[in-house]
Amino acid sequence: MAKNHQYVSFAVIRRLPRYYRFLGELLEKGVNRTSSKDLAQMMGLTASQIRQDLNCFGGFGQQGYGYNVAVLHAEIHKILGLDQNFRAILIGAGNLGRAFANHIDFEMGGFHLTAIFDKNPQVIGSSISGLMVRDIATIADYCSVCLPNVAILCIPKDDVKSIVDQLIACGVGAFWNFSHYDFSLDHPEVIVENTQLVDGLMALCYQINDQKEKQKS
Amino acid sequence: MAKNHQYVSFAVIRRLPRYYRFLGELLEKGVNRTSSKDLAQMMGLTASQIRQDLNCFGGFGQQGYGYNVAVLHAEIHKILGLDQNFRAILIGAGNLGRAFANHIDFEMGGFHLTAIFDKNPQVIGSSISGLMVRDIATIADYCSVCLPNVAILCIPKDDVKSIVDQLIACGVGAFWNFSHYDFSLDHPEVIVENTQLVDGLMALCYQINDQKEKQKS
Repeated sequence: MAKNHQYVSFAVIRRLPRYYRFLGELLEKGVNRTSSKDLAQMMGLTASQIRQDLNCFGGFGQQGYGYNVAVLHAEIHKILGLDQNFRAILIGAGNLGRAFANHIDFEMGGFHLTAIFDKNPQVIGSSISGLMVRDIATIADYCSVCLPNVAILCIPKDDVKSIVDQLIACGVGAFWNFSHYDFSLDHPEVIVENTQLVDGLMALCYQINDQKEKQKS
Repeated sequence: MAKNHQYVSFAVIRRLPRYYRFLGELLEKGVNRTSSKDLAQMMGLTASQIRQDLNCFGGFGQQGYGYNVAVLHAEIHKILGLDQNFRAILIGAGNLGRAFANHIDFEMGGFHLTAIFDKNPQVIGSSISGLMVRDIATIADYCSVCLPNVAILCIPKDDVKSIVDQLIACGVGAFWNFSHYDFSLDHPEVIVENTQLVDGLMALCYQINDQKEKQKS
């Protein structure tokens, strides 16, 4: 039995999607059983780190047997809440919004994408990933009926504040924010996941520069 | 004077882009001077955490004065290597690749986007963000002349291995990988930044579910 997941640290939760993916790949290959040593090798971690992480969810590993892949995969699925059928809406059908609607596997991430909104009359009414883009002016009505769990913000920085205020007033309690406007401090009552894509470039830039400096010295 | 940046921990480096952004916003507003307390409030961290992080780069903070915004901003710019004019190429001009080419501020992240490649004849020759999409078959010739520092992979999982092998043979030493194929363990000699967008959804899914569970109990 899994322990109540509210005792699991956020650092462990952040690693769970990776465990989930690797276990899914093992399942696809027909592998029924794995060990912390095998998982460690696959994932570039240490066996003790893996045992420590997975111990948070109770006694799946058995001395001399290891882990049952299907059981562990199903348990992580449940802990992540992927069985809850949460609803996501996407705000902004520009380049980035369109790409995400088409590219991201929402079902794999635990969500149904139920609606896409934009303010541009030239985009409203067009179809993306099987959904018709709705007028942002209708969003309050939509939310009062369909109660989305999360809004994904692919809109320019200057548009974020007013949309977020409106969505919070409509009861939306979680946001995936791709804009450079960080509203999480103004709204500690909601869940905010900030993804700054440019930070990925900066981290790479640092590492390339660092390697260059080390080669010089 | 900044200390040699190779002594700065990777955890601190990961926070630098955020410092850099906040300091840039202060500069834009004409603010010349800030304190660890002000920065802490802006960024949702503690003042002591900020002092600890910024101390890695030497003595910018002065008792009773705080930090000179322009000096600190310029120093982080240099530490991140944003002044190095590194070159990036983008592999894959599908939905995601196109969106990134148009959306991501490469210059802000320290790179020039110099070329885009695809294998699809219908896409080759079209223009994205001012660059003509090149045939992936010509990539070895391009790399031998233009020596890109990083390749951004927006291609399906099954295409990754062969492209990566080819690019490494051409001397590309860093990758930003958006596919679900993690090649970092097979190639410890190169720098890999993996960005799994679906992990963001899973982290949100967990938090929404967790909040729901807590409200129940």
